[in-house]
Amino acid sequence: MERLAIGIDIGGQSSKCGVVTEDGTILYQSVVTSLIDNFDEYLKLLADTVRDMVRRTADRGTVVGIGIGAPNANRLDGTIRYAPNLKWARDAHGNPTVIHLAKRLKEATGLHVRITNDANAAARGEHTYGVARGINDFIMITLGTGVGSGIISHGRLVYGHDGFAGELGHVCVIQDGRQCNCGLKGCLETYASAMGVARTAREILQNDSRESLLRNLDPEKISSKDIYDAAVQGDQLAKEIFAFTGRILGRAMGDFVKFSSPKAIVLFGGLTKSREFFHDEMVKAMNDNLMQIWKNKIQILYSSLKESDAAILGASSMVWSPEII
Amino acid sequence: MERLAIGIDIGGQSSKCGVVTEDGTILYQSVVTSLIDNFDEYLKLLADTVRDMVRRTADRGTVVGIGIGAPNANRLDGTIRYAPNLKWARDAHGNPTVIHLAKRLKEATGLHVRITNDANAAARGEHTYGVARGINDFIMITLGTGVGSGIISHGRLVYGHDGFAGELGHVCVIQDGRQCNCGLKGCLETYASAMGVARTAREILQNDSRESLLRNLDPEKISSKDIYDAAVQGDQLAKEIFAFTGRILGRAMGDFVKFSSPKAIVLFGGLTKSREFFHDEMVKAMNDNLMQIWKNKIQILYSSLKESDAAILGASSMVWSPEII
Repeated sequence: MERLAIGIDIGGQSSKCGVVTEDGTILYQSVVTSLIDNFDEYLKLLADTVRDMVRRTADRGTVVGIGIGAPNANRLDGTIRYAPNLKWARDAHGNPTVIHLAKRLKEATGLHVRITNDANAAARGEHTYGVARGINDFIMITLGTGVGSGIISHGRLVYGHDGFAGELGHVCVIQDGRQCNCGLKGCLETYASAMGVARTAREILQNDSRESLLRNLDPEKISSKDIYDAAVQGDQLAKEIFAFTGRILGRAMGDFVKFSSPKAIVLFGGLTKSREFFHDEMVKAMNDNLMQIWKNKIQILYSSLKESDAAILGASSMVWSPEII
Repeated sequence: MERLAIGIDIGGQSSKCGVVTEDGTILYQSVVTSLIDNFDEYLKLLADTVRDMVRRTADRGTVVGIGIGAPNANRLDGTIRYAPNLKWARDAHGNPTVIHLAKRLKEATGLHVRITNDANAAARGEHTYGVARGINDFIMITLGTGVGSGIISHGRLVYGHDGFAGELGHVCVIQDGRQCNCGLKGCLETYASAMGVARTAREILQNDSRESLLRNLDPEKISSKDIYDAAVQGDQLAKEIFAFTGRILGRAMGDFVKFSSPKAIVLFGGLTKSREFFHDEMVKAMNDNLMQIWKNKIQILYSSLKESDAAILGASSMVWSPEII
C-alpha cells in the first residue's frame, strides 16, 4: 500500500482537489465550488469531498495528509487572512476576515493539513515537477482570476518574516490607478488578471469608437475568454486589450527582476492561454525596464503542467516535505 | 598576533578603508578618493593605501584578506559591472564598463579579495554588528549619492541567479520620470538619493515662486546638505523637498514589502541625517501602500553604526565567512 497525499488548489471560482502519489502522479481529481458565502458550508463540502477521495483511492494506498494552496494563505499559522476574492472568507458584514482553514479542515477530516499561498504551491509544483526543475532562482507569477506570485531564491521559497512574502499582484503599477479588492489602487492584479483584462475591455470599448466583435456582448459580462475568442478572429480592439495587458505586466516584471535577479520568470494560470496576444509586448516592456546587466537575459517560461496540476502537485508535496520547499 | 581583515567601502566620491579585527573592531581607517577617471591610477592608490594600512597595524596582527563593498559589484565573479557612478569604471569612450576589481587588487597586493555590492556589505554589517542583529528578514536601503539595497531573507543575503539581486534603487517609481544614469527613467535613485533630492530642489525652485533660503545658492550646485541646512532654519520649500522625497521613498518601500515581507526596513547613508524632515511622510506613504496584513507592522530602523562603518565591517566580514552571509 502506497502513501498518498491530497493536494487542494483553492481559487476564487472553484477548489480543485487531487489524490497524489509520492512520485507526483495524480490518481483522482475532484472539483468543489468556491462560490459559497458561508465558511461552514464550504468546509462541509470540502471535507465531504476529501472523505470521498480517500474512499475512492483506498485500494491504491492511504492518504496521510492534505496540502492546500489558497490565496492569502499563511504557511506559518495555517490561516487565510483577508482574502478579497474568496466569498466564504468574509465576516457577517461581508468584509474579508481571518479563517483558520488548516485547523478546521483537520478537525473535520482527521487528516494533517498544511496550507500555503496558492502561488507558492504552484511554484513548488513547477520546481519539483515542471518547467522550473533545476532552476534555483525564479519568480512564479500566476495569472488567474487575480495575480499571485511565488519567489524561489537559492532554491527556497521566500516566505518572509510573517509568511506573506510574494504578493506581487498588489505591487502598484499605475499610481492612483484602478481600485483593487485589497483596498489599494493601481495593483498589478487590477490589470493583468482575468478580471483586469475584462476591466481593460470595458474601458477601451467605452473610450474608443471602433468596431469590435466585443460590442455584441454585454460589457458587464465580458470575460477574458470572450476577448481571447475575438482576438483569435482578428479583432483589433481585442488584440489591443492584450497588448496593453502585456505592457503593464512586462514593465512590472522588469521591476521584479531588480529585486531577486531570477534566472527565469514562470507564468502560469488561465490568462497564459492568450499568451500569443501579449507575449511579445510583455517581453519588450520587461527588457525596456531592465538595466544592461539583465537586458534580454531573463528566461520567460510558461507552465507545462496541465491546468491546476502545478498547484495540486505543489500543495500535495508539502505533505512529504513540510519544511520550506 | 591576531588575524585582521581590511574592509573597503567604495562610493562615488570616496573609498573608505578600515583594518578590522575578527570581533568587529575597526583599528585604523583611511580614505581614498574615488574621483579618478583612470582605473590603473585608482588601483595604484588603493593598493598603496592597503599596503600602508597593513604596515600600520602590523604590531596588532596579520591582514589575511580584503573584503570590498562597491556599487554594481558581483560577488560571484569579482567584477564591477557598468557602475554609472564610478568615474574610474568607464571605458575609453566614457561609458561604464566591466572592471575585474577582485583579480586586479589581488595581483597588486598579494591578498585574497572578495567583493560584494555596497548595500549587501552594509546589510551584512548591520546584521552582524548593527540594528538588524537577530532580524532574519529585512531590507537594507542605502540612501547615499545613489540608492542601493541589500535583501536578507531567512537570514541570508538574496544574491539571485547572477549575483545582482537587490537593485531596488532602479525600480521605476514614476513612469517616464527622471532620466537615471543607468539608462532607465523614473528610478527610485533619481528621487530618493542625495543627487535626487538636489534635482527635486532645482525643479521646485524653478516651478514655485515662493521665497526660500535656497534661492541664494547656485541651483546647479545645491547639495542635499544645503537643503538640510535650510530646512533646519525653517525654510518651507526645503521642508517640502524632503516631504516629497519621503512620499516617493515610502510608496516604493510599500511595494518592496510585498516582495519579501520583511520584519524591518533598515535605512542607511548620508540622506538619513535629514530623516527628521522625511520620516513621517515616508512612513505614511508606505502604510498607505500596504494591505491590511502589513499596515503599521513594518519596523523602520536607522543604522546605528558610525557613518561608513556598517559597510566596512560588512565587507571585512566576508574575509571570515566568505559564503553567502
